Amino acid sequence: MKKFLNAPETAVDDALAGLAAAHPELAVDRALRVVARASGARPGKVGLVSGGGSGHEPLHTGFVGPGMLDAACAGEIFSSPTPDRILAATRAAAAGAGVVHIVKNYTGDNLNFDMAAELAREEGIEVAKVTVADDVAVEDAGTAGRRGTGAALIVEKTAGARAEEGADLAAVVAVARQAAESSRSYAVALAAGTVPTTGRPSFELPDGLVESGVGIHGEPGRARAPLRPARDLAAAIADAVLADLPRRNEPVIALVNGLGATPLMELYVVYGHVAEELAHRGIAIARNLVGTYVTSLDTAGVSLTLCRADPALLRLWDAPVRTPALRWG
Amino acid sequence: MKKFLNAPETAVDDALAGLAAAHPELAVDRALRVVARASGARPGKVGLVSGGGSGHEPLHTGFVGPGMLDAACAGEIFSSPTPDRILAATRAAAAGAGVVHIVKNYTGDNLNFDMAAELAREEGIEVAKVTVADDVAVEDAGTAGRRGTGAALIVEKTAGARAEEGADLAAVVAVARQAAESSRSYAVALAAGTVPTTGRPSFELPDGLVESGVGIHGEPGRARAPLRPARDLAAAIADAVLADLPRRNEPVIALVNGLGATPLMELYVVYGHVAEELAHRGIAIARNLVGTYVTSLDTAGVSLTLCRADPALLRLWDAPVRTPALRWG
Repeated sequence: MKKFLNAPETAVDDALAGLAAAHPELAVDRALRVVARASGARPGKVGLVSGGGSGHEPLHTGFVGPGMLDAACAGEIFSSPTPDRILAATRAAAAGAGVVHIVKNYTGDNLNFDMAAELAREEGIEVAKVTVADDVAVEDAGTAGRRGTGAALIVEKTAGARAEEGADLAAVVAVARQAAESSRSYAVALAAGTVPTTGRPSFELPDGLVESGVGIHGEPGRARAPLRPARDLAAAIADAVLADLPRRNEPVIALVNGLGATPLMELYVVYGHVAEELAHRGIAIARNLVGTYVTSLDTAGVSLTLCRADPALLRLWDAPVRTPALRWG
Repeated sequence: MKKFLNAPETAVDDALAGLAAAHPELAVDRALRVVARASGARPGKVGLVSGGGSGHEPLHTGFVGPGMLDAACAGEIFSSPTPDRILAATRAAAAGAGVVHIVKNYTGDNLNFDMAAELAREEGIEVAKVTVADDVAVEDAGTAGRRGTGAALIVEKTAGARAEEGADLAAVVAVARQAAESSRSYAVALAAGTVPTTGRPSFELPDGLVESGVGIHGEPGRARAPLRPARDLAAAIADAVLADLPRRNEPVIALVNGLGATPLMELYVVYGHVAEELAHRGIAIARNLVGTYVTSLDTAGVSLTLCRADPALLRLWDAPVRTPALRWG
């Protein structure tokens, strides 16, 4: 394994140290691994908190700032942060109007965020939870259900904008739920990432094969097939997402996302074919984002997230955002 | 070789198609491979043009937009665009106040930009050339000299801001030269990228070794050494850059840049140690940028660019920019 790290055990801490050095507008508590806005919580604003295992950067720590999250909590690589740390992030985000927990749907994250919410409520902080479960590669069966992946970005962006303009807790939660429930994702990989502590790729993929339906924690996919031209892969990915996307007469926000080691040139090739596919099916892309935002260490892969968006959601998507990884408006 | 492409021969065209689909604010001429602002050249504004071989995305096509380039020209992978295409980009950028060619220092780019400039002058377009030659891994010896790499971003950003505020050709050129002459870079790689047409990595690097002083076209480095902790690598990279950086009592703009397949987590680890190193040496980092901007296909590597910056240059760095890959202000 070759990585720009000091040691597997210090990867998360060392990356947070770099984040803190690069971004004085963030308050980085390296002991608790909580990243918040240095300006503090704005009195009366609903607070937005997310977090989860590390290895998905810039998600979530790179999305802290005006127009998006108030605080994020980083766990070990691919491992949920503990409740005490999520509680610390919740405190950092609390400003009298309640806090929304945006939680990707994994067993550990659900448990730990729920425990942190209980502890926060005991301190008088109102907490609402919004679950992100967009990955159609996993059937919705039982307690776990679909995994949360790329839609987290769209939920955090739109709900963050709604909170920034002064909406109350119920209104911010409504936007977050709308974005989460309107989004579906699917990912494929050409090569698995390598967890620093194991030093080996999460799964072995022979030459000439593509793994279809991978997760963002090194979970292998639901099918393995010969590598095809990007045009065909993009069509298959779009098929998978559209098969489960809510059928409403709304345009979509389209996110073509690299999983960590995929060059931008390839992401644009995929985006071009996704756009063609959707045009053929009469689905308008109202907004798009092409880049590396929700990752899985150094996985060579790409994910597509589509989110049905009404004018209200598009307005929130367009609203100004100032974070390390997402800036516009 | 595994990539999200249709065929090696169509990679550049397919990526430009995706860029066009994603960014209606850009006018993408796929036949000429020229990317310009869809709004056209603003009368009386100095035009900024850059370009070069493809495979370095988002450089340069992702830097077209208000506050940065007016037009960019994309060659084949790692191969300079031809003079007729650079001429087309120059025409697209010309608005009566002259055009600046920002050229990374490679033999092919120099020749083709010079020929294009001659052709443009015959059409009555005033053209000035600014050469970017920041890579300290290559000795300044003879006609070729140092290679142009990460500093191109800083030159395009600052000169672009100066042009946007209405400065004349001489003033924009002065800023571009100041940024170019004040910048130095150095890059290391853990694994070489793979050119689609060859299907093989540009060089083989055994397990446990790092290639030091690599270029952005698969050029091997000037030394090969055992992989060390990121702290030590960052110190060595900073050493190399600082040994050749102009010695002025000015702070620096620091760019820690991924070469295409390096996760953001690792870039932040490196940035943290670069910041420590510079602090030890009493060099202030006035601004920083951490991300994947000047790449070499899917090379797993990192480059450091430092640019001595006076208050005037910092003001231009901070000015608003609206491009696919760089947005702030």
